[in-house]
Amino acid sequence: MSYFLDPNAAAGFRGDRFAKADLVRGGQLFLGLNCFEPGQSQAAHTHAGADKFYLVVSGKARMTVGAETRIVGPGAVVWAPSDVPHGVDEALERTVLLVGMAPPPRVRET
Amino acid sequence: MSYFLDPNAAAGFRGDRFAKADLVRGGQLFLGLNCFEPGQSQAAHTHAGADKFYLVVSGKARMTVGAETRIVGPGAVVWAPSDVPHGVDEALERTVLLVGMAPPPRVRET
Repeated sequence: MSYFLDPNAAAGFRGDRFAKADLVRGGQLFLGLNCFEPGQSQAAHTHAGADKFYLVVSGKARMTVGAETRIVGPGAVVWAPSDVPHGVDEALERTVLLVGMAPPPRVRET
Repeated sequence: MSYFLDPNAAAGFRGDRFAKADLVRGGQLFLGLNCFEPGQSQAAHTHAGADKFYLVVSGKARMTVGAETRIVGPGAVVWAPSDVPHGVDEALERTVLLVGMAPPPRVRET
């Protein structure tokens, strides 16, 4: 495996719900993608004991963490620390989010 | 603190060496910035037991992980897993790298 990764090459979409893709899974840290067609969402959820972030690779989405909701675009970083509810209310365009989580999820629960 | 972070707003540079800035420090995951003027570098180093990644926010740099060297630009993700040497050989433009590390460094050793 190369140490140099291209998120855009790993992005993929599906019609019925947002799509996930793994980029890399280390012993301490997981990186993956969440890919949304316009109108798709990710229900608010929490990860017990795991810190997570999203980075907007492309697109535009309305996201919520805790009591804070914002519309985010390319380059924005969204911090979802352990036990704080977070989700994607709605993708306003086709949107690719880089997702990182530590410790890594046991299954694809990012 | 807001959960919505703007790496560009946190970027800062110095003339004598590359500059670091913390974005957020969680219990499991640290996010920060490494900011390079053209020609600046980060010596190859390893983190025992910690996984790390860089994401190129802006600019262009020649980077090495293990035995692999590449020139990277905006959007590239560079994976530096536990115990694999990595560094920035040279920034070819003014370059901002988002850095993530798990578990978080005890000091600013990212």
